[in-house]
Amino acid sequence: MKHNFGAGPCILPQEVFKQASQGVLNFNDTGLSILEISHRAPEFVAVMEEAIALVKELLKVPTGYSVIFLQGGASLQFAMVAYNLLAEGKKASYIDSGVWAKKAIAEAKLFGQADVVASSKDKNYSYIPKNYTVAADSSYLHFTSNNTIFGTEFHQFPDKKNHLVCDMSSDIFSKEINVADFDLIYAGAQKNIGPAGATLVIVKDEILGKTGRTIPSMLDYEKQIAAESMYNTPPVFSVYAAMLNLRWLKAKGGVAAIEKENITKADALYKEIDRNPLFKGTTATEDRSRMSVCFVMENPDLEKPFLKFAEEKGCIGIKGHRSVGGFRASLYNALPITSVHVLVEAMQEFEEKNK
Amino acid sequence: MKHNFGAGPCILPQEVFKQASQGVLNFNDTGLSILEISHRAPEFVAVMEEAIALVKELLKVPTGYSVIFLQGGASLQFAMVAYNLLAEGKKASYIDSGVWAKKAIAEAKLFGQADVVASSKDKNYSYIPKNYTVAADSSYLHFTSNNTIFGTEFHQFPDKKNHLVCDMSSDIFSKEINVADFDLIYAGAQKNIGPAGATLVIVKDEILGKTGRTIPSMLDYEKQIAAESMYNTPPVFSVYAAMLNLRWLKAKGGVAAIEKENITKADALYKEIDRNPLFKGTTATEDRSRMSVCFVMENPDLEKPFLKFAEEKGCIGIKGHRSVGGFRASLYNALPITSVHVLVEAMQEFEEKNK
Ligand SMILES: Cc1ncc(COP(=O)(O)O)c(C=O)c1O
Ligand SMILES: Cc1ncc(COP(=O)(O)O)c(C=O)c1O
Ligand SMILES: [Mg+2]
Ligand SMILES: [Mg+2]
Ligand SMILES: [Mg+2]
Ligand SMILES: [Mg+2]
Repeated sequence: MKHNFGAGPCILPQEVFKQASQGVLNFNDTGLSILEISHRAPEFVAVMEEAIALVKELLKVPTGYSVIFLQGGASLQFAMVAYNLLAEGKKASYIDSGVWAKKAIAEAKLFGQADVVASSKDKNYSYIPKNYTVAADSSYLHFTSNNTIFGTEFHQFPDKKNHLVCDMSSDIFSKEINVADFDLIYAGAQKNIGPAGATLVIVKDEILGKTGRTIPSMLDYEKQIAAESMYNTPPVFSVYAAMLNLRWLKAKGGVAAIEKENITKADALYKEIDRNPLFKGTTATEDRSRMSVCFVMENPDLEKPFLKFAEEKGCIGIKGHRSVGGFRASLYNALPITSVHVLVEAMQEFEEKNK
Repeated sequence: MKHNFGAGPCILPQEVFKQASQGVLNFNDTGLSILEISHRAPEFVAVMEEAIALVKELLKVPTGYSVIFLQGGASLQFAMVAYNLLAEGKKASYIDSGVWAKKAIAEAKLFGQADVVASSKDKNYSYIPKNYTVAADSSYLHFTSNNTIFGTEFHQFPDKKNHLVCDMSSDIFSKEINVADFDLIYAGAQKNIGPAGATLVIVKDEILGKTGRTIPSMLDYEKQIAAESMYNTPPVFSVYAAMLNLRWLKAKGGVAAIEKENITKADALYKEIDRNPLFKGTTATEDRSRMSVCFVMENPDLEKPFLKFAEEKGCIGIKGHRSVGGFRASLYNALPITSVHVLVEAMQEFEEKNK
């Protein structure tokens, strides 16, 4: 049995794999594959509508916000956010908390002034910047709620008096949030939403259409909203599998219930990292991510052997990103607590063997 | 049994459905779903490489061209083509042969001058424009090789002395082409390539990087080429299913073999349209598409009854687009000749019943 700690595309519930696999053969007893039905067929329109309704229900999205599924991943959002929200001659503010934040900043600079108001680069992004001021005339403040590569997470969001734009790619649906505090939230699907190929955007309608720019249709949030995520052919299968996954989350008790599980999983792993003399965390304790647990070994020579040892126990995808080294265990929603236990036991056994 | 004549997303081979379904449960005996593996895992890198190699092999792509898989569909290409190839102050030429051509023109106009050198709008796009001149200093000539909605197809391509850019969304891989005649070819995957969610681009390397524009990374062909279609998380499942479908095409004998079948299928259906006094084609005979066969009834009151009759025989997806009315039977690569026979027999039976 494999325990998939991969950073994304990542583990999804086994029942989602079964249902999606069945849908590829025979979707909803239509006698057709989900891959061959028209996106305009009522059966698929119902899928898209249910996926959007589930996002709204699970995150309690208030009225005045639109929910759309797009293509291009979070990386296309780096550009779309600025294209749609940053007027020429205006400026936006960005928190530089890691690789993805930096990429978002680089794309925004193509469209206007993107000021870095705070950065944790000085300590290899091992903490969340906390004291900074945002210019009152800033169009928005952009931040990355979970820094997938470095293992830090905003446990308290920036002041909501700013217009908040958030890349929630790696912690959306992992915990309760108040959508009303944000102007725009986006996320590549391939962590807690579904497989790769879809991108979720939740946007406050009233902020759109104010830059005076003419935006290519595919990049224009207003056009995508008006077309109800069907401006062109949507990524049918990715949206279908996302819908199945959101159904699973609802059946589990929704975001509040999964948040409890996620806390339990992260606590169990961090506890072992702290207790076990061979391992140590890489981030500031108060900023530790519940989704992306980064750690190294006191003796770096033991890292290769431990990686091998853990893999023999079935723990895969735990090699850390090269910017941090060591290990990263991603504990997304679908990862069962039993997988965390297997990893913790592997750490303990390895400690015994290396005494 | 259903005969899927849908315009796209459309029928794919049954064995592709079976293999893709299996991959969702257990991909290549990894014990993991194709939906949960990292796009950087060697197993998926091999899929992407094979998909690209199959495109090159099946279309005999010459050296000096790059092949990439992107997201966003053909509609995002409408903008990307101009963003990457049309410098400010320069102009491009477009042939207006239908709805999709028009949309491509509208997006190009956001980036520079897009001149319509020929249009068949005067006769509701029922023919392919043939006599026109293209300004010698035009950056490129854009055309839509198959007009999916109106049922016309370029059986002879425009003069290759122009820099040709072609939207081949609905006839790529249906017939042999000489890639060297083109500067750029693009296609949404959801007809002859695979399921929705991926976009294929074949581009001559030397035409890139010449506009002086700074292009958002995700929209920059050069960056996507340098990253080998992995600038960010690619649409993993869509590329996987496309790879399976291209393998199927290769096993069938490749493009030359499928072209023969496609000719046989289209001939059979057009023959019946012409012979049967109840039906008539909607396009100029010499411009008839082999992929998108559009036809109406001499007596429009019989169209609803025939649609129902054909559906009872299992023929689905044959309702024409509202811009043409009547019927459209899409005869993509995966549609078996037996499905065409069923439709032809339905037309004949219906004729008998209405004598
Ligand atoms: C926080 C965050 N933002 C952005 C991205 C890039 O996402 P995509 O590959 O969908 O463009 C990632 C990918 O892991 C991420 O973790
Ligand atoms: C010729 C042609 N071009 C472009 C498109 C739009 O494709 P997409 O939905 O991938 O943007 C279509 C869709 O059917 C098409 O047939
Ligand atoms: Mg990061
Ligand atoms: Mg320790
Ligand atoms: Mg058309
Ligand atoms: Mg006739």
